[in-house]
Amino acid sequence: MNELSLIRSIRRYTASGRRDPALIAGIGDDCAILRPRAHEDLLLTTDFLIEDVHFRRKTHTTVDTGWRALARGLSDIAAMGGDARYALISLALPPWVRASYVRDLYKGFNLLATQHGVRIIGGDVTRTAKLTIDVVVIGAVPRGRALRRSGARPGDVVCVSGALGRAAVSKYRARPEPRLALGRKLRGKATACMDLSDGLAMDLHRLCLESGVAAALDGVLPCAPGATIEQALQGGEDYELLCTLPPRQPVPRGFVRIGVVLSGKPGTVTFAGAPLPPSGWDPLA
Amino acid sequence: MNELSLIRSIRRYTASGRRDPALIAGIGDDCAILRPRAHEDLLLTTDFLIEDVHFRRKTHTTVDTGWRALARGLSDIAAMGGDARYALISLALPPWVRASYVRDLYKGFNLLATQHGVRIIGGDVTRTAKLTIDVVVIGAVPRGRALRRSGARPGDVVCVSGALGRAAVSKYRARPEPRLALGRKLRGKATACMDLSDGLAMDLHRLCLESGVAAALDGVLPCAPGATIEQALQGGEDYELLCTLPPRQPVPRGFVRIGVVLSGKPGTVTFAGAPLPPSGWDPLA
Repeated sequence: MNELSLIRSIRRYTASGRRDPALIAGIGDDCAILRPRAHEDLLLTTDFLIEDVHFRRKTHTTVDTGWRALARGLSDIAAMGGDARYALISLALPPWVRASYVRDLYKGFNLLATQHGVRIIGGDVTRTAKLTIDVVVIGAVPRGRALRRSGARPGDVVCVSGALGRAAVSKYRARPEPRLALGRKLRGKATACMDLSDGLAMDLHRLCLESGVAAALDGVLPCAPGATIEQALQGGEDYELLCTLPPRQPVPRGFVRIGVVLSGKPGTVTFAGAPLPPSGWDPLA
Repeated sequence: MNELSLIRSIRRYTASGRRDPALIAGIGDDCAILRPRAHEDLLLTTDFLIEDVHFRRKTHTTVDTGWRALARGLSDIAAMGGDARYALISLALPPWVRASYVRDLYKGFNLLATQHGVRIIGGDVTRTAKLTIDVVVIGAVPRGRALRRSGARPGDVVCVSGALGRAAVSKYRARPEPRLALGRKLRGKATACMDLSDGLAMDLHRLCLESGVAAALDGVLPCAPGATIEQALQGGEDYELLCTLPPRQPVPRGFVRIGVVLSGKPGTVTFAGAPLPPSGWDPLA
Protein backbone atom coordinates (compact mmCIF):
# COMPACT_ATOMS: atom_id res chain seq x y z
CA MET A 1 0.00 0.00 0.00
CA ASN A 2 1.43 3.39 -1.01
CA GLU A 3 -0.16 6.83 -1.03
CA LEU A 4 -1.19 6.80 -4.70
CA SER A 5 -2.76 3.33 -4.52
CA LEU A 6 -4.53 4.16 -1.24
CA ILE A 7 -6.03 7.36 -2.70
CA ARG A 8 -7.09 5.40 -5.78
CA SER A 9 -8.96 2.93 -3.54
CA ILE A 10 -10.56 5.75 -1.53
CA ARG A 11 -11.80 7.40 -4.73
CA ARG A 12 -13.43 4.09 -5.62
CA TYR A 13 -15.05 3.70 -2.17
CA THR A 14 -16.41 7.26 -2.28
CA ALA A 15 -17.54 7.38 -5.91
CA SER A 16 -21.13 8.52 -6.31
CA GLY A 17 -23.40 8.60 -9.31
CA ARG A 18 -25.49 11.34 -7.74
CA ARG A 19 -25.15 14.69 -9.51
CA ASP A 20 -24.64 17.67 -7.21
CA PRO A 21 -24.40 21.11 -8.83
CA ALA A 22 -22.96 22.52 -5.57
CA LEU A 23 -19.96 20.16 -5.66
CA ILE A 24 -17.46 21.47 -8.22
CA ALA A 25 -14.57 19.15 -7.26
CA GLY A 26 -14.17 16.36 -4.73
CA ILE A 27 -11.23 14.03 -4.04
CA GLY A 28 -8.25 14.36 -6.40
CA ASP A 29 -7.13 17.99 -6.22
CA ASP A 30 -5.40 20.18 -3.62
CA CYS A 31 -8.79 21.31 -2.26
CA ALA A 32 -12.42 20.34 -2.62
CA ILE A 33 -14.47 23.07 -4.33
CA LEU A 34 -18.02 23.91 -3.23
CA ARG A 35 -20.48 26.40 -4.72
CA PRO A 36 -22.61 27.53 -1.76
CA ARG A 37 -26.35 27.95 -2.32
CA ALA A 38 -27.88 31.37 -1.79
CA HIS A 39 -29.77 31.99 1.48
CA GLU A 40 -27.86 29.33 3.41
CA ASP A 41 -25.30 29.53 6.17
CA LEU A 42 -22.59 26.87 6.22
CA LEU A 43 -21.77 24.79 9.30
CA LEU A 44 -18.27 23.38 9.84
CA THR A 45 -17.12 20.90 12.44
CA THR A 46 -14.08 18.67 12.90
CA ASP A 47 -13.61 15.68 15.25
CA PHE A 48 -10.88 13.21 16.03
CA LEU A 49 -11.47 9.50 16.62
CA ILE A 50 -8.31 7.91 17.99
CA GLU A 51 -7.39 4.31 18.81
CA ASP A 52 -7.22 3.63 22.57
CA VAL A 53 -8.77 7.06 23.29
CA HIS A 54 -12.15 6.84 21.56
CA PHE A 55 -12.20 3.18 20.54
CA ARG A 56 -10.31 -0.10 20.95
CA ARG A 57 -9.61 -2.57 18.17
CA LYS A 58 -10.48 -5.44 20.50
CA THR A 59 -13.99 -4.20 21.27
CA HIS A 60 -15.04 -2.24 18.17
CA THR A 61 -15.40 -3.69 14.69
CA THR A 62 -13.76 -1.77 11.86
CA VAL A 63 -17.12 -0.95 10.26
CA ASP A 64 -18.40 0.38 13.61
CA THR A 65 -15.24 2.48 14.01
CA GLY A 66 -15.89 4.17 10.66
CA TRP A 67 -19.53 4.73 11.60
CA ARG A 68 -18.59 6.29 14.97
CA ALA A 69 -15.98 8.60 13.46
CA LEU A 70 -18.54 10.12 11.10
CA ALA A 71 -21.39 10.06 13.65
CA ARG A 72 -19.56 12.54 15.90
CA GLY A 73 -19.48 15.18 13.19
CA LEU A 74 -23.01 14.54 11.97
CA SER A 75 -24.24 14.97 15.54
CA ASP A 76 -22.60 18.43 15.67
CA ILE A 77 -24.55 19.39 12.53
CA ALA A 78 -27.75 18.02 14.13
CA ALA A 79 -27.05 20.18 17.19
CA MET A 80 -27.19 23.32 15.00
CA GLY A 81 -30.41 22.23 13.26
CA GLY A 82 -28.55 21.70 10.00
CA ASP A 83 -28.56 19.40 7.00
CA ALA A 84 -25.32 17.42 6.69
CA ARG A 85 -23.91 17.64 3.14
CA TYR A 86 -20.21 16.77 2.85
CA ALA A 87 -17.36 15.18 4.77
CA LEU A 88 -13.58 15.29 4.51
CA ILE A 89 -12.07 12.22 6.14
CA SER A 90 -8.39 12.03 7.08
CA LEU A 91 -6.63 8.83 8.08
CA ALA A 92 -3.31 8.47 9.89
CA LEU A 93 -2.54 4.76 9.71
CA PRO A 94 -0.27 2.55 11.84
CA PRO A 95 1.90 -0.07 10.12
CA TRP A 96 -0.56 -2.91 10.91
CA VAL A 97 -3.28 -1.42 8.70
CA ARG A 98 -3.94 -3.40 5.51
CA ALA A 99 -5.97 -2.31 2.48
CA SER A 100 -8.90 -4.45 3.69
CA TYR A 101 -9.01 -2.51 6.95
CA VAL A 102 -9.33 0.80 5.08
CA ARG A 103 -12.05 -0.76 2.91
CA ASP A 104 -14.01 -1.72 6.05
CA LEU A 105 -13.60 1.75 7.55
CA TYR A 106 -15.14 3.19 4.37
CA LYS A 107 -17.96 0.65 4.65
CA GLY A 108 -18.73 2.20 8.03
CA PHE A 109 -18.40 5.77 6.75
CA ASN A 110 -20.60 4.97 3.76
CA LEU A 111 -23.35 3.20 5.75
CA LEU A 112 -23.98 6.35 7.76
CA ALA A 113 -23.19 8.84 4.99
CA THR A 114 -25.74 7.22 2.68
CA GLN A 115 -28.46 7.38 5.35
CA HIS A 116 -28.03 11.14 5.64
CA GLY A 117 -27.16 12.07 2.04
CA VAL A 118 -23.58 12.99 2.94
CA ARG A 119 -20.83 12.86 0.32
CA ILE A 120 -17.14 12.28 1.15
CA ILE A 121 -15.22 14.90 -0.84
CA GLY A 122 -11.67 14.97 0.50
CA GLY A 123 -9.23 14.26 3.31
CA ASP A 124 -5.59 13.43 3.96
CA VAL A 125 -3.66 10.19 4.39
CA THR A 126 -0.47 9.63 6.33
CA ARG A 127 1.02 7.24 8.87
CA THR A 128 1.25 7.33 12.66
CA ALA A 129 1.53 5.04 15.71
CA LYS A 130 -2.15 4.87 16.80
CA LEU A 131 -4.93 4.83 14.21
CA THR A 132 -6.22 8.41 14.00
CA ILE A 133 -9.27 9.51 12.06
CA ASP A 134 -10.21 13.15 11.64
CA VAL A 135 -13.62 13.89 10.18
CA VAL A 136 -14.70 17.32 8.94
CA VAL A 137 -18.41 17.68 8.25
CA ILE A 138 -19.92 20.54 6.25
CA GLY A 139 -23.59 21.25 6.77
CA ALA A 140 -26.04 23.96 5.85
CA VAL A 141 -28.97 25.72 7.45
CA PRO A 142 -31.33 28.43 6.17
CA ARG A 143 -29.63 31.80 6.70
CA GLY A 144 -29.70 32.94 10.32
CA ARG A 145 -31.52 29.80 11.52
CA ALA A 146 -28.64 27.85 13.09
CA LEU A 147 -29.33 26.72 16.66
CA ARG A 148 -26.71 28.03 19.08
CA ARG A 149 -25.64 27.14 22.60
CA SER A 150 -25.94 30.74 23.73
CA GLY A 151 -29.64 31.55 23.52
CA ALA A 152 -31.11 29.90 26.64
CA ARG A 153 -33.12 32.33 28.80
CA PRO A 154 -34.42 32.01 32.38
CA GLY A 155 -37.81 30.34 32.30
CA ASP A 156 -37.00 28.18 29.27
CA VAL A 157 -37.68 24.47 29.51
CA VAL A 158 -34.72 22.02 29.20
CA CYS A 159 -35.38 18.99 26.98
CA VAL A 160 -33.50 15.97 25.61
CA SER A 161 -34.21 13.96 22.48
CA GLY A 162 -34.12 10.48 23.99
CA ALA A 163 -33.05 8.06 26.68
CA LEU A 164 -29.67 8.75 28.29
CA GLY A 165 -26.91 6.37 29.31
CA ARG A 166 -27.42 4.09 26.31
CA ALA A 167 -23.77 4.35 25.22
CA ALA A 168 -22.48 3.68 28.73
CA VAL A 169 -24.74 0.61 29.14
CA SER A 170 -23.47 -0.82 25.84
CA LYS A 171 -19.87 -0.13 27.01
CA TYR A 172 -19.70 2.38 24.14
CA ARG A 173 -20.13 -0.34 21.53
CA ALA A 174 -23.56 0.73 20.20
CA ARG A 175 -23.65 2.67 16.94
CA PRO A 176 -24.71 6.21 17.83
CA GLU A 177 -27.52 7.67 15.70
CA PRO A 178 -27.01 11.38 14.93
CA ARG A 179 -30.34 13.17 15.50
CA LEU A 180 -30.41 15.19 12.29
CA ALA A 181 -34.18 15.01 11.71
CA LEU A 182 -34.90 15.99 15.33
CA GLY A 183 -32.42 18.87 15.12
CA ARG A 184 -34.15 20.29 12.04
CA LYS A 185 -37.47 20.13 13.93
CA LEU A 186 -36.09 22.60 16.48
CA ARG A 187 -35.37 25.37 13.93
CA GLY A 188 -37.29 28.47 14.92
CA LYS A 189 -38.38 26.81 18.19
CA ALA A 190 -35.39 26.07 20.43
CA THR A 191 -33.58 28.98 22.09
CA ALA A 192 -30.41 26.88 22.48
CA CYS A 193 -29.21 23.44 21.46
CA MET A 194 -26.14 21.18 21.62
CA ASP A 195 -25.43 17.47 21.34
CA LEU A 196 -24.65 15.27 24.33
CA SER A 197 -21.16 14.00 23.66
CA ASP A 198 -19.56 14.18 27.13
CA GLY A 199 -22.55 13.51 29.39
CA LEU A 200 -25.54 15.62 30.49
CA ALA A 201 -23.84 17.04 33.61
CA MET A 202 -20.85 18.38 31.65
CA ASP A 203 -22.74 19.43 28.54
CA LEU A 204 -25.61 21.25 30.30
CA HIS A 205 -22.95 23.11 32.29
CA ARG A 206 -21.37 24.20 28.99
CA LEU A 207 -24.68 25.27 27.47
CA CYS A 208 -25.47 27.30 30.59
CA LEU A 209 -22.00 28.91 30.54
CA GLU A 210 -22.44 30.00 26.90
CA SER A 211 -25.94 31.34 27.62
CA GLY A 212 -24.98 33.01 30.91
CA VAL A 213 -27.66 31.14 32.82
CA ALA A 214 -28.14 28.36 35.42
CA ALA A 215 -30.39 25.31 35.22
CA ALA A 216 -32.34 23.00 37.52
CA LEU A 217 -32.94 19.40 36.46
CA ASP A 218 -36.21 17.94 37.75
CA GLY A 219 -34.65 14.79 39.18
CA VAL A 220 -36.38 12.44 36.74
CA LEU A 221 -34.51 11.52 33.57
CA PRO A 222 -35.36 9.32 30.60
CA CYS A 223 -32.87 6.49 31.16
CA ALA A 224 -31.90 3.82 28.65
CA PRO A 225 -32.85 0.26 29.73
CA GLY A 226 -30.33 -0.87 32.32
CA ALA A 227 -28.75 2.58 32.75
CA THR A 228 -28.08 3.92 36.24
CA ILE A 229 -28.80 7.57 36.99
CA GLU A 230 -25.01 8.17 37.06
CA GLN A 231 -24.70 6.72 33.55
CA ALA A 232 -27.56 8.97 32.40
CA LEU A 233 -25.89 12.04 33.95
CA GLN A 234 -22.22 11.34 33.24
CA GLY A 235 -21.99 8.71 30.52
CA GLY A 236 -20.88 10.39 27.33
CA GLU A 237 -21.37 9.58 23.64
CA ASP A 238 -25.17 9.34 23.71
CA TYR A 239 -25.35 11.98 20.95
CA GLU A 240 -28.90 12.86 21.91
CA LEU A 241 -29.81 16.55 21.57
CA LEU A 242 -30.05 18.83 24.58
CA CYS A 243 -32.16 21.94 23.96
CA THR A 244 -34.03 24.75 25.64
CA LEU A 245 -37.49 25.91 24.57
CA PRO A 246 -39.46 29.02 25.54
CA PRO A 247 -41.98 28.20 28.29
CA ARG A 248 -45.01 28.53 26.00
CA GLN A 249 -43.50 26.46 23.16
CA PRO A 250 -45.04 22.95 23.09
CA VAL A 251 -42.34 20.28 23.51
CA PRO A 252 -41.89 18.79 20.01
CA ARG A 253 -42.56 15.08 19.52
CA GLY A 254 -39.39 13.12 20.21
CA PHE A 255 -38.26 15.38 23.06
CA VAL A 256 -38.74 15.02 26.83
CA ARG A 257 -38.73 17.80 29.41
CA ILE A 258 -36.04 17.31 32.07
CA GLY A 259 -35.70 20.71 33.76
CA VAL A 260 -35.82 24.47 33.60
CA VAL A 261 -33.44 27.37 32.92
CA LEU A 262 -32.86 29.81 35.82
CA SER A 263 -31.03 33.05 36.31
CA GLY A 264 -28.03 32.50 38.59
CA LYS A 265 -24.29 31.94 38.47
CA PRO A 266 -23.63 30.96 34.82
CA GLY A 267 -23.00 27.24 34.44
CA THR A 268 -24.54 26.21 37.77
CA VAL A 269 -26.71 23.11 37.47
CA THR A 270 -28.76 21.29 40.11
CA PHE A 271 -30.32 17.83 39.97
CA ALA A 272 -33.36 17.24 42.23
CA GLY A 273 -32.29 20.30 44.21
CA ALA A 274 -28.67 19.20 44.82
CA PRO A 275 -25.66 20.73 43.04
CA LEU A 276 -24.58 18.72 39.98
CA PRO A 277 -20.85 19.18 39.29
CA PRO A 278 -19.75 19.35 35.62
CA SER A 279 -18.12 15.91 35.63
CA GLY A 280 -18.12 13.56 32.70
CA TRP A 281 -15.66 12.30 30.17
CA ASP A 282 -12.73 14.71 29.81
CA PRO A 283 -10.01 13.36 27.51
CA LEU A 284 -7.46 15.80 28.97
CA ALA A 285 -8.22 15.49 32.68
CA MET B 1 -5.07 21.33 32.12
CA ASN B 2 -8.58 20.06 31.39
CA GLU B 3 -10.73 20.42 28.28
CA LEU B 4 -12.69 23.47 29.48
CA SER B 5 -9.56 25.38 30.58
CA LEU B 6 -7.72 24.47 27.38
CA ILE B 7 -10.59 25.70 25.20
CA ARG B 8 -10.75 28.89 27.29
CA SER B 9 -7.04 29.51 26.57
CA ILE B 10 -7.48 28.75 22.87
CA ARG B 11 -10.34 31.26 22.65
CA ARG B 12 -7.99 33.86 24.14
CA TYR B 13 -5.18 33.00 21.69
CA THR B 14 -7.53 33.21 18.72
CA ALA B 15 -9.54 36.30 19.74
CA SER B 16 -9.68 38.93 17.02
CA GLY B 17 -10.96 42.47 17.08
CA ARG B 18 -11.49 42.39 13.31
CA ARG B 19 -15.16 42.43 12.32
CA ASP B 20 -16.12 39.90 9.66
CA PRO B 21 -19.74 39.88 8.47
CA ALA B 22 -19.18 36.44 6.88
CA LEU B 23 -18.28 34.83 10.22
CA ILE B 24 -21.48 34.23 12.19
CA ALA B 25 -19.92 32.03 14.92
CA GLY B 26 -16.39 30.86 15.64
CA ILE B 27 -15.03 28.79 18.54
CA GLY B 28 -17.50 27.94 21.32
CA ASP B 29 -20.37 26.11 19.66
CA ASP B 30 -20.88 22.68 18.09
CA CYS B 31 -20.00 24.09 14.65
CA ALA B 32 -18.54 27.26 13.22
CA ILE B 33 -21.08 29.19 11.11
CA LEU B 34 -20.10 30.94 7.88
CA ARG B 35 -22.21 33.10 5.58
CA PRO B 36 -20.69 32.59 2.10
CA ARG B 37 -20.35 35.62 -0.16
CA ALA B 38 -22.18 35.62 -3.47
CA HIS B 39 -20.15 34.85 -6.63
CA GLU B 40 -17.49 32.88 -4.77
CA ASP B 41 -16.63 29.20 -4.69
CA LEU B 42 -15.32 27.79 -1.41
CA LEU B 43 -12.11 25.77 -1.14
CA LEU B 44 -11.65 23.17 1.61
CA THR B 45 -8.51 21.30 2.57
CA THR B 46 -7.37 19.30 5.59
CA ASP B 47 -3.84 18.22 6.56
CA PHE B 48 -2.24 16.29 9.39
CA LEU B 49 1.03 17.27 11.03
CA ILE B 50 2.24 14.46 13.28
CA GLU B 51 5.16 14.13 15.68
CA ASP B 52 7.94 11.85 14.35
CA VAL B 53 6.23 11.72 10.94
CA HIS B 54 6.22 15.37 9.84
CA PHE B 55 8.34 16.93 12.58
CA ARG B 56 10.53 16.07 15.58
CA ARG B 57 10.50 17.87 18.89
CA LYS B 58 14.30 17.76 18.97
CA THR B 59 14.77 19.61 15.72
CA HIS B 60 11.70 21.83 15.37
CA THR B 61 10.73 24.62 17.77
CA THR B 62 7.14 24.67 18.97
CA VAL B 63 6.44 27.97 17.20
CA ASP B 64 7.84 26.53 13.95
CA THR B 65 5.67 23.42 14.36
CA GLY B 66 2.54 25.57 14.58
CA TRP B 67 3.65 27.55 11.55
CA ARG B 68 4.31 24.39 9.50
CA ALA B 69 0.98 22.82 10.39
CA LEU B 70 -0.92 25.81 9.04
CA ALA B 71 1.44 26.37 6.10
CA ARG B 72 0.49 23.01 4.56
CA GLY B 73 -3.17 23.99 4.31
CA LEU B 74 -2.50 27.54 3.13
CA SER B 75 -0.32 26.13 0.38
CA ASP B 76 -3.25 23.99 -0.84
CA ILE B 77 -5.38 27.15 -1.08
CA ALA B 78 -2.53 28.89 -2.98
CA ALA B 79 -2.46 25.95 -5.40
CA MET B 80 -6.09 26.66 -6.34
CA GLY B 81 -5.49 30.40 -6.80
CA GLY B 82 -7.58 31.15 -3.70
CA ASP B 83 -7.70 33.58 -0.81
CA ALA B 84 -7.27 31.83 2.55
CA ARG B 85 -9.97 32.93 5.02
CA TYR B 86 -10.49 30.57 7.97
CA ALA B 87 -8.88 27.62 9.73
CA LEU B 88 -10.13 24.94 12.12
CA ILE B 89 -7.23 23.55 14.14
CA SER B 90 -7.49 20.27 16.05
CA LEU B 91 -4.95 19.11 18.62
CA ALA B 92 -4.45 15.61 19.99
CA LEU B 93 -2.00 16.05 22.85
CA PRO B 94 0.35 13.58 24.55
CA PRO B 95 0.69 13.66 28.36
CA TRP B 96 3.93 15.70 28.23
CA VAL B 97 2.18 18.74 26.73
CA ARG B 98 1.87 21.69 29.11
CA ALA B 99 -0.26 24.82 28.69
CA SER B 100 2.86 26.79 27.63
CA TYR B 101 3.44 24.36 24.75
CA VAL B 102 -0.07 24.95 23.42
CA ARG B 103 0.47 28.71 23.80
CA ASP B 104 3.63 28.46 21.65
CA LEU B 105 1.85 26.37 19.01
CA TYR B 106 -0.76 29.14 18.73
CA LYS B 107 2.06 31.70 18.44
CA GLY B 108 3.16 29.78 15.36
CA PHE B 109 -0.38 29.46 13.96
CA ASN B 110 -1.02 33.16 14.59
CA LEU B 111 2.23 34.40 13.04
CA LEU B 112 1.29 32.85 9.71
CA ALA B 113 -2.47 33.39 10.01
CA THR B 114 -2.00 37.12 10.59
CA GLN B 115 0.24 37.45 7.52
CA HIS B 116 -2.51 36.06 5.31
CA GLY B 117 -5.62 37.39 7.03
CA VAL B 118 -6.72 33.94 8.20
CA ARG B 119 -8.94 33.54 11.25
CA ILE B 120 -8.98 30.41 13.46
CA ILE B 121 -12.66 29.59 13.99
CA GLY B 122 -12.83 26.08 15.45
CA GLY B 123 -11.23 22.70 16.00
CA ASP B 124 -11.18 19.78 18.43
CA VAL B 125 -9.00 18.87 21.41
CA THR B 126 -8.23 15.41 22.76
CA ARG B 127 -5.30 13.30 23.90
CA THR B 128 -3.10 10.77 22.12
CA ALA B 129 0.37 9.24 22.20
CA LYS B 130 2.15 11.33 19.53
CA LEU B 131 1.32 15.02 19.13
CA THR B 132 -1.13 15.24 16.22
CA ILE B 133 -2.33 18.46 14.62
CA ASP B 134 -5.06 18.52 12.01
CA VAL B 135 -5.59 21.79 10.18
CA VAL B 136 -8.62 22.53 7.99
CA VAL B 137 -8.33 25.65 5.84
CA ILE B 138 -11.28 27.32 4.12
CA GLY B 139 -10.53 29.56 1.20
CA ALA B 140 -12.47 31.29 -1.53
CA VAL B 141 -12.03 32.06 -5.19
CA PRO B 142 -14.21 33.97 -7.69
CA ARG B 143 -16.85 31.56 -8.99
CA GLY B 144 -15.46 29.08 -11.51
CA ARG B 145 -11.91 30.45 -11.30
CA ALA B 146 -10.25 27.81 -9.09
CA LEU B 147 -7.05 26.38 -10.58
CA ARG B 148 -7.24 22.61 -10.99
CA ARG B 149 -4.71 19.83 -11.52
CA SER B 150 -6.62 18.49 -14.48
CA GLY B 151 -6.38 21.19 -17.16
CA ALA B 152 -2.84 20.75 -18.56
CA ARG B 153 -2.81 20.32 -22.37
CA PRO B 154 -0.04 19.15 -24.73
CA GLY B 155 2.06 22.13 -25.74
CA ASP B 156 1.61 23.94 -22.40
CA VAL B 157 4.71 25.20 -20.64
CA VAL B 158 5.54 23.78 -17.17
CA CYS B 159 6.62 26.38 -14.58
CA VAL B 160 7.54 26.57 -10.89
CA SER B 161 7.32 29.53 -8.54
CA GLY B 162 10.80 29.37 -7.05
CA ALA B 163 13.97 27.49 -6.23
CA LEU B 164 13.54 23.80 -5.39
CA GLY B 165 15.22 21.67 -2.72
CA ARG B 166 15.23 24.48 -0.14
CA ALA B 167 13.40 22.38 2.47
CA ALA B 168 15.70 19.39 1.94
CA VAL B 169 18.83 21.57 2.25
CA SER B 170 17.57 23.01 5.56
CA LYS B 171 16.81 19.43 6.75
CA TYR B 172 13.14 20.47 6.71
CA ARG B 173 13.68 23.09 9.41
CA ALA B 174 12.98 26.21 7.32
CA ARG B 175 9.56 27.83 7.66
CA PRO B 176 7.74 27.20 4.38
CA GLU B 177 6.08 30.25 2.81
CA PRO B 178 2.72 29.46 1.19
CA ARG B 179 2.61 31.14 -2.23
CA LEU B 180 -0.85 32.70 -1.94
CA ALA B 181 -0.06 35.92 -3.86
CA LEU B 182 1.62 33.97 -6.68
CA GLY B 183 -1.32 31.55 -6.85
CA ARG B 184 -3.80 34.41 -7.28
CA LYS B 185 -1.65 35.75 -10.14
CA LEU B 186 -2.29 32.54 -12.06
CA ARG B 187 -6.11 32.91 -12.10
CA GLY B 188 -7.30 33.00 -15.68
CA LYS B 189 -3.80 32.18 -16.93
CA ALA B 190 -2.66 28.73 -15.76
CA THR B 191 -4.30 25.64 -17.27
CA ALA B 192 -3.34 23.55 -14.21
CA CYS B 193 -1.69 24.13 -10.84
CA MET B 194 -0.74 22.28 -7.64
CA ASP B 195 1.68 22.84 -4.77
CA LEU B 196 4.94 20.93 -4.41
CA SER B 197 4.57 19.05 -1.16
CA ASP B 198 6.13 15.67 -1.99
CA GLY B 199 8.80 16.65 -4.54
CA LEU B 200 8.68 17.68 -8.21
CA ALA B 201 9.08 14.14 -9.58
CA MET B 202 6.09 12.80 -7.61
CA ASP B 203 3.91 15.88 -7.90
CA LEU B 204 4.38 16.48 -11.64
CA HIS B 205 3.52 12.80 -12.14
CA ARG B 206 0.26 13.40 -10.24
CA LEU B 207 -0.59 16.57 -12.18
CA CYS B 208 0.02 14.72 -15.45
CA LEU B 209 -2.14 11.77 -14.31
CA GLU B 210 -5.06 14.10 -13.45
CA SER B 211 -4.69 15.93 -16.78
CA GLY B 212 -4.19 12.77 -18.85
CA VAL B 213 -0.89 14.03 -20.30
CA ALA B 214 2.88 13.46 -20.13
CA ALA B 215 5.64 16.02 -19.52
CA ALA B 216 9.29 16.61 -20.41
CA LEU B 217 11.47 18.59 -18.01
CA ASP B 218 14.22 20.59 -19.74
CA GLY B 219 17.01 19.29 -17.52
CA VAL B 220 17.75 22.66 -15.95
CA LEU B 221 15.98 23.46 -12.65
CA PRO B 222 16.04 26.48 -10.34
CA CYS B 223 17.84 24.95 -7.35
CA ALA B 224 18.03 26.43 -3.85
CA PRO B 225 21.61 27.33 -2.78
CA GLY B 226 23.36 24.10 -1.81
CA ALA B 227 20.63 21.83 -3.18
CA THR B 228 21.58 18.85 -5.33
CA ILE B 229 19.52 18.02 -8.41
CA GLU B 230 18.12 15.02 -6.48
CA GLN B 231 16.96 17.31 -3.66
CA ALA B 232 15.34 19.61 -6.24
CA LEU B 233 13.57 16.66 -7.90
CA GLN B 234 12.67 14.53 -4.88
CA GLY B 235 12.92 16.71 -1.76
CA GLY B 236 9.40 17.44 -0.55
CA GLU B 237 7.91 20.29 1.47
CA ASP B 238 9.12 23.14 -0.73
CA TYR B 239 5.52 24.34 -1.13
CA GLU B 240 6.38 26.17 -4.33
CA LEU B 241 3.66 26.17 -6.99
CA LEU B 242 3.86 23.92 -10.04
CA CYS B 243 1.72 25.13 -12.95
CA THR B 244 1.16 24.80 -16.67
CA LEU B 245 0.55 27.76 -18.98
CA PRO B 246 -0.67 27.88 -22.59
CA PRO B 247 2.30 28.26 -25.00
CA ARG B 248 1.45 31.86 -25.90
CA GLN B 249 0.87 33.00 -22.29
CA PRO B 250 3.84 35.05 -21.02
CA VAL B 251 5.39 33.42 -17.93
CA PRO B 252 4.23 35.59 -14.98
CA ARG B 253 6.87 37.32 -12.88
CA GLY B 254 7.91 35.00 -10.04
CA PHE B 255 7.68 31.85 -12.17
CA VAL B 256 10.38 29.95 -14.09
CA ARG B 257 9.87 27.67 -17.08
CA ILE B 258 11.16 24.13 -16.45
CA GLY B 259 9.58 22.00 -19.18
CA VAL B 260 6.71 21.28 -21.51
CA VAL B 261 3.51 19.20 -21.54
CA LEU B 262 3.31 16.38 -24.11
CA SER B 263 0.71 13.94 -25.23
CA GLY B 264 1.72 10.42 -24.18
CA LYS B 265 1.07 7.83 -21.48
CA PRO B 266 -0.62 9.83 -18.69
CA GLY B 267 1.77 10.51 -15.82
CA THR B 268 4.97 9.83 -17.75
CA VAL B 269 7.68 12.39 -17.00
CA THR B 270 11.19 12.73 -18.43
CA PHE B 271 14.11 14.82 -17.16
CA ALA B 272 16.71 15.84 -19.75
CA GLY B 273 15.36 13.05 -21.98
CA ALA B 274 15.61 10.26 -19.39
CA PRO B 275 12.57 8.72 -17.61
CA LEU B 276 11.92 10.32 -14.20
CA PRO B 277 10.15 7.86 -11.86
CA PRO B 278 7.51 9.26 -9.49
CA SER B 279 9.65 8.89 -6.39
CA GLY B 280 9.62 11.27 -3.46
CA TRP B 281 8.34 11.34 0.07
CA ASP B 282 5.58 8.78 0.55
CA PRO B 283 4.45 8.48 4.16
CA LEU B 284 2.85 5.08 3.51
CA ALA B 285 5.56 3.43 1.40
